[in-house]
This record gives sequence, structure tokens and C-alpha cells, in this order.
Amino acid sequence: MPRQIVECVPNFSEGRRPEVIEQIVDVVRQAKEEGLAVSLLDHSADRDHNRMVVTYVGEAQAVAEVAFRLARQAQALINMEEHRGAHPRIGATDVIPFIPISGITMPECVALSKQLGARLADELAIPVYLYAESATTAARRRLPDVRVGQYEGLKEAVGLPERRPDFAPAGEPRLHPTAGATAVGARNYLIAYNINLNTPNVEIAKRISKNIRESSGGLVNVQAMGVDLAAQGLAQVSMNLLNHKATPLYRAFELVRAEAARYGVTIGHSELVGLLPLDAMIDAAAYYLQLEGFSREQLLEVRMISVE
Amino acid sequence: MPRQIVECVPNFSEGRRPEVIEQIVDVVRQAKEEGLAVSLLDHSADRDHNRMVVTYVGEAQAVAEVAFRLARQAQALINMEEHRGAHPRIGATDVIPFIPISGITMPECVALSKQLGARLADELAIPVYLYAESATTAARRRLPDVRVGQYEGLKEAVGLPERRPDFAPAGEPRLHPTAGATAVGARNYLIAYNINLNTPNVEIAKRISKNIRESSGGLVNVQAMGVDLAAQGLAQVSMNLLNHKATPLYRAFELVRAEAARYGVTIGHSELVGLLPLDAMIDAAAYYLQLEGFSREQLLEVRMISVE
Repeated sequence: MPRQIVECVPNFSEGRRPEVIEQIVDVVRQAKEEGLAVSLLDHSADRDHNRMVVTYVGEAQAVAEVAFRLARQAQALINMEEHRGAHPRIGATDVIPFIPISGITMPECVALSKQLGARLADELAIPVYLYAESATTAARRRLPDVRVGQYEGLKEAVGLPERRPDFAPAGEPRLHPTAGATAVGARNYLIAYNINLNTPNVEIAKRISKNIRESSGGLVNVQAMGVDLAAQGLAQVSMNLLNHKATPLYRAFELVRAEAARYGVTIGHSELVGLLPLDAMIDAAAYYLQLEGFSREQLLEVRMISVE
Repeated sequence: MPRQIVECVPNFSEGRRPEVIEQIVDVVRQAKEEGLAVSLLDHSADRDHNRMVVTYVGEAQAVAEVAFRLARQAQALINMEEHRGAHPRIGATDVIPFIPISGITMPECVALSKQLGARLADELAIPVYLYAESATTAARRRLPDVRVGQYEGLKEAVGLPERRPDFAPAGEPRLHPTAGATAVGARNYLIAYNINLNTPNVEIAKRISKNIRESSGGLVNVQAMGVDLAAQGLAQVSMNLLNHKATPLYRAFELVRAEAARYGVTIGHSELVGLLPLDAMIDAAAYYLQLEGFSREQLLEVRMISVE
């Protein structure tokens, strides 16, 4: 059996006290030392936002367990009554997204988010809103909608029927007095993908971007904008692919190529920014090589992990 | 640091006694249980050849250690004086190939094979011939040349200067009295890759194969033949890619496409047979997407292994 790999990118309402930031990140490091199958990939904090982000990845159940421990640690160290910062937030642990990477489906990640939501309410008395793919109503899919009024406003609004948490301790709904509330949900992996055109004309990059993005007649799950790379004498189509399984890299690439041809422009090269799941690369290779019947299990490295 | 992953496919002169076959395969299983970073991928035995093949993969040093233990086990269980079989062989452990999979170069695998060769001679008194990329003379690159005369003939010939082992116990060169000799070397991974043409005409597949293979004016590191898939009403170009890093999948694919166009024939689909290294797929994706600056470390799954 292949392992079920999930990424988690929780956000906490602390970006100023270095010792608190370290104590939160240490939760992931210590869990790993204890033998839980998780790896810390990155963490960063912002003073103005007074907010931090932790990125880690691992086996589904271990990732959920560590998310619980992180929320418990943040609850112990952060008091929302004293928190000020530029970024909207509803709690000490503001949001916990689960992202399927490999060997796991979106519905399974939704189930994982619900399992964690129930634990946060039961064991930490923190009310939880399910968002993104886990949302129970359309009005909760987008994080800004869940955050309306922020921590301060939600203290009152939590009593309204339309703001009732998906998980909460028994009794009248109320926020945790210091930790507030938390949004938990499953979402797709976002791939940042740029294509550099063999032209310095940013107008062409802008027109192509307009034609290929979801918002103006192009591919669903694609955001795009034209960028002037004056120093390189090039124009760029800069994209976010919001669901690479449904709308893969190669489709965006081929559509940019087709739209560019309209202006006699070719593609110089493309760039993948940051991390991405292996499947995104495999899907591209399989498409261009017209592969039939290919399985990830044919990759030696994957087989090695599977049989371990 | 990424792990150095090596595959090893040792062949042993035993294909008939099930209990001996199991005792040899158990060496890999037990090493894994002891915590060595190796995984058994496959094993098979052939009665007529009286020979078995074990396929396992893992971290370079662990793979070499397990290869040593396998040779020690085969020496304890197999007596070449009593061995009869259809397949040419020179010892109880006939050949040990090391194949670089990821994070390791061919010269590093050559060094690994020499390290093992020295141990087999010093600790097990088994003379060793280095072959393939590890060969010390051109005459020893090909395994059939190393095996000339087989076990029985080599007992005499081992005294000749041109048959002197690369590693042997001190004194006059002689075979081990029951375990014979062993060939050890590093070689490239072989990828079996088939392309099905949109034509039932096998003559076209044969002409394309002739044009794209090394032996008749095509790509180096490529073997190819035309095959009639009568049941499917298709003709196939069936290839072995002997060095996918130097001569990648996509180059073979594109050359077949170009040669097929000469006959107005298109590619129906392609198939990868058996296992292959991840790099082969990544290289194809990077080529077609015109990726610049891409690193395996951008893959979440690879990053996860690296930071573990």
C-alpha cells in the first residue's frame, strides 16, 4: 500500500514573540523525534500581520495528530484578547488546511478535517468552522466569509444561526475565551507556474493571461496575469493552478502556446515556483509520451517507499 | 541531502531447491528487519537454468552490505561442484550488478562495486571479476566474455594472466573450491519502452526500428525491433533504452514520431514495461514543458524523504 501523504499549512496568531514562535514550531520537530511520520518543510512569521505559518507534510493520521498538538500549544501560549495585527483572524490557531499530496483523495482529506474539528471542540473547547472542500454550506467555502467580523465580532455573532460552528462544546455556542475559533478544511494544492514569452511586449502577456484564465473565458482553476520582466527583456504569463489534477500543467502550457502563436510569439521557457506534488510532473510526462496504463507503482522510488 | 538510492539484481546458481531459494531471499528480508535501508522488490527462480534472481533497492551502503551477506549465504548453501544448469555461470553468486537510481553517480556505483569486490575476496576468499562500467579492461565489459569457459573452465583458466581476477585472496589465483568466482559491476538501468503505431503494417514498424536504433544509424543506447501485434491490429516499435540519462525517453519517442510521419503513420500510444527510475519521467516533463531551473527537491515527496 502506498502511504497517504498530506500537507498541512496551519496559520497562528503570533508573529512577534520569537520564543512563542519557536515553541509552536517545536511541536512538529518533537512529534517527528517521537517517531510520528511528519516532516517540517518551512515556517515563517510576519510582525505586521502578527501571524505565523508552518508547513509540514507526512502520513495522514500523523499530520492530523500534529495539527491537534499545534492547536493545543497555540491555545496555551496565545491570548486573543491581547492580539493585534493587520491580517484578519478568528483565533489563536486561525486556520488549518489539509492538502492531499499522494495516495489520498479529497473526500478522505475532508474526513480528516472533520475528525480534527471534532477533537478541537471536544478536547480543547475550541469551536470549529469547516471551510473550503470541507464546508457544509456554500457561504463557508471561502475563508474571508468565515472570518467576517474577525475574533472580536465573532464573539457576538457566534450565537446567530448562520454563524453556528460546525463543531463546538455542548451548550450555547461561544468562542473559547482566549483561543477564539478555528477554521479547518481540505483544499487542493496550489501550483505557482510561470511561462516566459519570447517577447518584451507585456501587452501580449496580458492578453494571453486574460484569454487563458477562468475569470475571463479560459481554463477553470487557473488564475493568470501578465508581468513585465523588463530586466530580462521578456514578458511573462504568471499563473496559479488551483487544482492541478483537474486542470493540469500541460493544459495551461499548451493553451498559452496556442494563444501566443496568434501574435507570432513562442515560449522561451517555463518555471515552477516552490514545491509541487510529484503527480503534476508524472501527468505531464504521461500526456506528452502518450503513455497508456502507467502507474506510479512502476517508479522505483515509489515502490521502495511502498514496500518499506 | 537526498538519499543515495541503488538497485541490486544479484543472480545465484540455484533454481531448484525451494528451501535454499528461501534462505537466500530471507537475507534481504532479515536485513530489512534489522533496520538496514533496503527493500525487496522481486525474486524469481528457473528450474532449467537452475538459477535465481533477486531484485532489491535501498541506500548505497546498505545495498552493498546486503550484497555481501547474500554472497556469504550462497557460499554456505551452494556447491558449484554439484551444479548443473542451462545458463552460463562462474560461481554460487554468479553476478552482482549495482544500478544507480537517484542521488548517486555511476562513478560512485563503480566505487561501491570495488568496495564489495575487495570484501568478497578478503572475507569469503571468492575471486572477483569487475565487469560493465566497473571493468578494468575492455575485454571484461561484457558478461559473456567474463564467463568464457564457465565455472569448470575457469578453474584452469584463472591462472592465465588475461583471466587474473581483479580481487582475489593472496597467493596463486584460484577459484573458491565450492563457490567459484563472482562478477561484480555497476551498470545503467535498462528501460523497456514500447510505442504502438496506428497501422497494422509490421514492415513499417521494422523500418522505423532499423532507423532509430544504434546498430543501424540511429540513437546510441537504443535497441529496437518491429513487432506485429496482430490481435490488436497494430504494429509496435519495441525498445530497450540502455542509458536513459544520456538518451532519454522523449528523444526516442520524438524520433519514432518523426520516422513514422515519413509513412503517414501516427503514434497510437506508448507503454513503459516494468519499473523505471523517477528521473526518466521528470526529464520528459521538463523537456516538454520547457522547464528551466527545475530541481527534484521541489517535489514534495522527495523533500519529505530528504528531510526525514
